[in-house]
Amino acid sequence: MESTTSYKGLQSVIWAGSHLDLLDQRLLPEEIVYLPLVTTEDVWEAIRHLKVRGAPAIGIAAAYGVVLGSRDAADAAAWLEAVKTSASYLATSRPTAVNLFWALDRMTARAEALAASGADVSACKEALLQEAITIQSEDEETNRLIGEHALTLFQDGMGVLTHCNAGGLATAKYGTALAPFYLALEQGIKLRVFADETRPVLQGARLTAFELQQAGVDVTLICDNMAGMVMSKGWVDAVIVGTDRVAANGDVANKIGTYSVAVLAKAHGIPFYVACPLSTIDLNTPSGGEIPIEERHENEITEGFGKRTAPAGVKVYNPAFDITPNEYVTAIITEKGIVKPPYDVNLKKLFQD
Amino acid sequence: MESTTSYKGLQSVIWAGSHLDLLDQRLLPEEIVYLPLVTTEDVWEAIRHLKVRGAPAIGIAAAYGVVLGSRDAADAAAWLEAVKTSASYLATSRPTAVNLFWALDRMTARAEALAASGADVSACKEALLQEAITIQSEDEETNRLIGEHALTLFQDGMGVLTHCNAGGLATAKYGTALAPFYLALEQGIKLRVFADETRPVLQGARLTAFELQQAGVDVTLICDNMAGMVMSKGWVDAVIVGTDRVAANGDVANKIGTYSVAVLAKAHGIPFYVACPLSTIDLNTPSGGEIPIEERHENEITEGFGKRTAPAGVKVYNPAFDITPNEYVTAIITEKGIVKPPYDVNLKKLFQD
Repeated sequence: MESTTSYKGLQSVIWAGSHLDLLDQRLLPEEIVYLPLVTTEDVWEAIRHLKVRGAPAIGIAAAYGVVLGSRDAADAAAWLEAVKTSASYLATSRPTAVNLFWALDRMTARAEALAASGADVSACKEALLQEAITIQSEDEETNRLIGEHALTLFQDGMGVLTHCNAGGLATAKYGTALAPFYLALEQGIKLRVFADETRPVLQGARLTAFELQQAGVDVTLICDNMAGMVMSKGWVDAVIVGTDRVAANGDVANKIGTYSVAVLAKAHGIPFYVACPLSTIDLNTPSGGEIPIEERHENEITEGFGKRTAPAGVKVYNPAFDITPNEYVTAIITEKGIVKPPYDVNLKKLFQD
Repeated sequence: MESTTSYKGLQSVIWAGSHLDLLDQRLLPEEIVYLPLVTTEDVWEAIRHLKVRGAPAIGIAAAYGVVLGSRDAADAAAWLEAVKTSASYLATSRPTAVNLFWALDRMTARAEALAASGADVSACKEALLQEAITIQSEDEETNRLIGEHALTLFQDGMGVLTHCNAGGLATAKYGTALAPFYLALEQGIKLRVFADETRPVLQGARLTAFELQQAGVDVTLICDNMAGMVMSKGWVDAVIVGTDRVAANGDVANKIGTYSVAVLAKAHGIPFYVACPLSTIDLNTPSGGEIPIEERHENEITEGFGKRTAPAGVKVYNPAFDITPNEYVTAIITEKGIVKPPYDVNLKKLFQD
């Protein structure tokens, strides 16, 4: 199954030989600007300020960030030290997406193995760059597989609702939750997608609606608070979202508002699917209660549109993510197939096979 | 019980002797601008474009709109004709809020009685203006009574979530759903209010957060999609909202997103209250299915804040209201007391008593 033709999207992270070209997602869809990131600090800042977002894309950017932070080392020992320092630093950029830590751990482990092998420092650097490139290309292949598995759950004519952006912009390519829509297009399967705009940062309006529209997918933009009404009209046959971290028991951390969508889906008898690579599943986190939830600045809510839309000084609560308990999750779709409850048993199996 | 001290809010509709001064609610909280409305057309335009909004305030503005449209008539017959023409015209400004039609019917009926009485045209005009002033002052008294009844449902220390703005700005004074918060303040009962920002027009952020903050009520602004998370944290003990129309069976039309909040409340075992005057209850509408739902322009979602936040040409669905079926409504709070299910029986009783 060839799925390269339907994805016409922008690439969010591009290794440019000696620096990273990063698509500034905050400016989409109005402006397409690639920022040259030269230092680890540049990458940290880009992650922190949502210039790059989406759990897999954050992991990829961070992997290159380690490369950028260690490339000036004079010898293998200094290089390994720089890798570790860069990784520790980048780990502080955002707390929720586990792919960030997964990618940093993978880069650090690779660097340790390279240093232990006695390779010279330039060979180490080259091999570590290759590891970052591999993380990126694996993500692309992973997403195609997720898309193929997910598409088996959808039939022609279905309405599918998604929240936030787990598309090509959030990953290396294709996306996780949006991957089946690109494959459906290619195979002539008609799906009608509803995209929640996803306040406060509007990833649904600015990114999901944008990339699906560009590709020619039938997408309708709604405000987050319209999801219930659209479901009650019988227009939604399934929900699919991405995730920033899945706990060992199947609890899912994802963009704020996902939990509300999951409760609404259950109330309407609509299946609720979560799409993610294995790198997003964290067996070291027992349940959603242990996933740290980032709280962001109130001005995302009070003046997010370039204009003040709430009274000055008003109290604001702005969690960036929420936890959807496993009982709301119909299935988790990974590159290795579709996982159903009981998740505590079945997620573990996924890693043992 | 004196409740005049706690409400420090702006008045949205002010009769200025020969014209209407109308607070332009679209500009709040940043700018406080009163627009002089001189003609019926001015009032129609103000209602249509949300310069005035909130079911009771729309009814009050429309009542004065009839006065403005008939004051130049030379004789009683021409005057009655002008009243009817103005009322029919104003009825086309927005379709959902029943208070609009209620106020117009009341004004027309009063005019017919005056004309039939044989009073001269200037006496007719004066008496009809008095009717509009009465509608406004009755609304103020009604809201105080609603607030008193509603407050019996809340205890010190409770968290209460509200959606959209059913406050002083939406009514003559105090509001419906927000009235108990002003009374609680006065009586030293501490409530923590969560205000949904209420996309797309942000009445929660711009109006509810604004008027509660001005009054000194403990209010926290959240995005609509955070309501589920806030409930799951146990911070919400009750939900209270206003309504644009209650059908005879207790189905409730209110600002888009209300239905989602009601489903979330039920899933969390949280009571869901609706506050409104009797003039919002429409026994002629059997159920929510018969309430017309206004759909508004897509640019409220795609460029609502002077900045494009979605790709050009994207499909958008923008219903202004939704229907909450009666099974989600714990109680309806009116000036005549608290009504509980079965609504088909108990709402009718309210009008018989």
